[in-house]
Amino acid sequence: MDDVVRQETGAPAPAPASPRRRRFIARGAAASLAAASGAATLPGAVQAAAPEILPDNLPPNVPQWMREPGAGFLNPPYGLPSPFEKNVLRKLPDQPAAFPTATRTPLQHLFGSTTPNGLFFERHHAGVPAIDPAQHRLMVHGLVERPLLLDMKTLLRFPAVSRSHFIECSGNGSAEFKAPGRGTVQDIHGLLSGAEWTGVRLADVLAEAGVLPAARWLLAEGADAAAMTRSFPLAKALDDALLVYGQNGEMLRPEQGYPLRLLLPGFEGNMSVKWLRRLKVGDAPFHTREETAKYTDLMPDGTARQFTFRMGVKSLITAPSARQVLDGHGFREISGLAWSGHGRITRVDVSVDGGRRWQAAALDGPVQRHALTRFRFPWRWTGQEAILQSRAVDEAGNVQPTRDALVGSVGRNSAYHYNAIQSWKVAADGEVSNVHV
Amino acid sequence: MDDVVRQETGAPAPAPASPRRRRFIARGAAASLAAASGAATLPGAVQAAAPEILPDNLPPNVPQWMREPGAGFLNPPYGLPSPFEKNVLRKLPDQPAAFPTATRTPLQHLFGSTTPNGLFFERHHAGVPAIDPAQHRLMVHGLVERPLLLDMKTLLRFPAVSRSHFIECSGNGSAEFKAPGRGTVQDIHGLLSGAEWTGVRLADVLAEAGVLPAARWLLAEGADAAAMTRSFPLAKALDDALLVYGQNGEMLRPEQGYPLRLLLPGFEGNMSVKWLRRLKVGDAPFHTREETAKYTDLMPDGTARQFTFRMGVKSLITAPSARQVLDGHGFREISGLAWSGHGRITRVDVSVDGGRRWQAAALDGPVQRHALTRFRFPWRWTGQEAILQSRAVDEAGNVQPTRDALVGSVGRNSAYHYNAIQSWKVAADGEVSNVHV
Repeated sequence: MDDVVRQETGAPAPAPASPRRRRFIARGAAASLAAASGAATLPGAVQAAAPEILPDNLPPNVPQWMREPGAGFLNPPYGLPSPFEKNVLRKLPDQPAAFPTATRTPLQHLFGSTTPNGLFFERHHAGVPAIDPAQHRLMVHGLVERPLLLDMKTLLRFPAVSRSHFIECSGNGSAEFKAPGRGTVQDIHGLLSGAEWTGVRLADVLAEAGVLPAARWLLAEGADAAAMTRSFPLAKALDDALLVYGQNGEMLRPEQGYPLRLLLPGFEGNMSVKWLRRLKVGDAPFHTREETAKYTDLMPDGTARQFTFRMGVKSLITAPSARQVLDGHGFREISGLAWSGHGRITRVDVSVDGGRRWQAAALDGPVQRHALTRFRFPWRWTGQEAILQSRAVDEAGNVQPTRDALVGSVGRNSAYHYNAIQSWKVAADGEVSNVHV
Repeated sequence: MDDVVRQETGAPAPAPASPRRRRFIARGAAASLAAASGAATLPGAVQAAAPEILPDNLPPNVPQWMREPGAGFLNPPYGLPSPFEKNVLRKLPDQPAAFPTATRTPLQHLFGSTTPNGLFFERHHAGVPAIDPAQHRLMVHGLVERPLLLDMKTLLRFPAVSRSHFIECSGNGSAEFKAPGRGTVQDIHGLLSGAEWTGVRLADVLAEAGVLPAARWLLAEGADAAAMTRSFPLAKALDDALLVYGQNGEMLRPEQGYPLRLLLPGFEGNMSVKWLRRLKVGDAPFHTREETAKYTDLMPDGTARQFTFRMGVKSLITAPSARQVLDGHGFREISGLAWSGHGRITRVDVSVDGGRRWQAAALDGPVQRHALTRFRFPWRWTGQEAILQSRAVDEAGNVQPTRDALVGSVGRNSAYHYNAIQSWKVAADGEVSNVHV
């Protein structure tokens, strides 16, 4: 009872044992939480306001799940999320399409900087091929000394590397060139995910083939029914390009290119060609459909920019974000993701007043090159209207632009490379919505 | 044709464009691979020995999966591995049990340093409770100023951190105290996994509660039918202990403690209490069943060591490993995992001759504290018998012991904390087996 009295009268407490002196929940909030949610009537709920009645070993209300043995092991034992998380899924666009070509990652529900493989966004040009890895081959030909035909067993014997990298569709968020989308951050920016990839350095495979002096470009071709093809510079191939077969520790998933994917860190997602079956070395770009009819950036003067490989520096606040409702005043952490096709993220600033004042966010380490970086910023919401924004800076010195600056620079015609600062408006009732400011 | 002739006659090739000059596959291996596997008769197989017949845009043999659109999107769209990976699963022990209590991670099939959530090892003391997160509460009481009852919504508003850490069952590999196991590395050492965890610093929660000066120990209790309980020192709680709700980017899986787990980095896995419902602060250890009847280390003199929290420095070669068969001579990468409960891995050495000569392996970075670290070592197998071993060193200077040294120090009675050097014997026919040398 003494404890309760101290708690309610707000008498000074001894310094906490932690070096962090900040208090995150209001005095009595724990007890009032229990009351507000009707927790006292639920199995497992304990009255925090009455600590003196607690026995030594077990709280008085034993929940149902402690009264009987739990479930046994799954068969087959490949694990899945809790049924209570059944709404945390990749999502098709709201507008139905005869041939949907993408699903989006639920960024608003995720933590850290890893996207689970089951939630990694998808973009297909002709559906997901069902490839038998024992039959799959990679051909390396063109301007090489020794054309190669490699099976997966051979590729698995090469020296491997594991690296964390994001993949973002170059069209991610580009509807924002027109008008603010009304969906969640998943709907608006969900063509973005990150993973730990394992594979072979493309430079090692090219060394086996012996690249001829005239070589300048490569063609990558996928083994899907679209025979998806893109050109990329030899310099990228020899720098950090990978032929990956592993994603987050296991083999690639079918929708991510099983059994082999080209990975061009920091480049447009479509260039990391899935179901990779062929690399042709040439002396010039190959001007395939996907780099002439598609994946070029239409400028205001009617010209189109081609081969805009690198994704711009970008960040997003994912919590809180659009369509969420703040469920109470007081402390809450603002957090989100930052990434750049130009290298490491060096800084993220956050504004809670629509860009008038910016303060540095903390970055979760280790910060890696061309990788999703989680940022965190402490905030106390007391019911005021607020405009939340984040602005990322990368190691090349690129600063994420405002929407006005981006539109002023490239216009509104492009369907690609939208990396403007995202603004979320928090209303007085706690509702969060997407706004252009 | 010229290419083929040069290839077959082994005429000198120009230096490869890559800075890495080593060759990983023998001359002509690519072509002979196609022949050996009968690839010429398979859809999608291309004759590497006949590059002159290749058209410009598409190899002549178009595989079945390029002839028609692929599969559409899953509903519900939570992704799963390829059907071709159906044998990459967690595994129950070979000996059937009425109440199996563990599944093991398929380390021999994994890459990098992440364990996918669907393959993360399991150890339960009373099955997996089906917890409704809206009903779940964490109670913090005992020697505190302000007892707390926290729901998940409140915990999610605290400042969060994401960190990569391994979890290893303290009994992992301990059957090796007796005799060499005949299974795979999964059977022998598969009670080990690693993940990126997200949650709240326990120090922050204790600061909210206000730890009293007499406090020295904490009790953690799980909301399973075993009411699994362990004691741990306050110093650990204030150092790096986390209350985690996120694993590899998404909410914890049910079998990993959904919705809340204590995480004590580097400590015995059972101490990272799952389904965490209660933390009691006290002035002494609580001497629960799981730290008196179980999880103590029986010494040769009949005494038992209690509270042996930290997992020893350990490493394993996972590729190649027991029950695998090397499928050809030539280059292959040896790779494996190293970890320590005493901090970062600083070095891993590999021996291919049973420990006579040791050479440093490369470590995949960034190397993190109390985290799985992938090591890699280049090897050329030419059919000789070999004994493959790895030996890890951590930042505290601990060196992974030989089996003889470990048994000489703690005897063979313990069911816990087996961290000796693992030896795999490669026979002349390529078969790999577990041996004690």
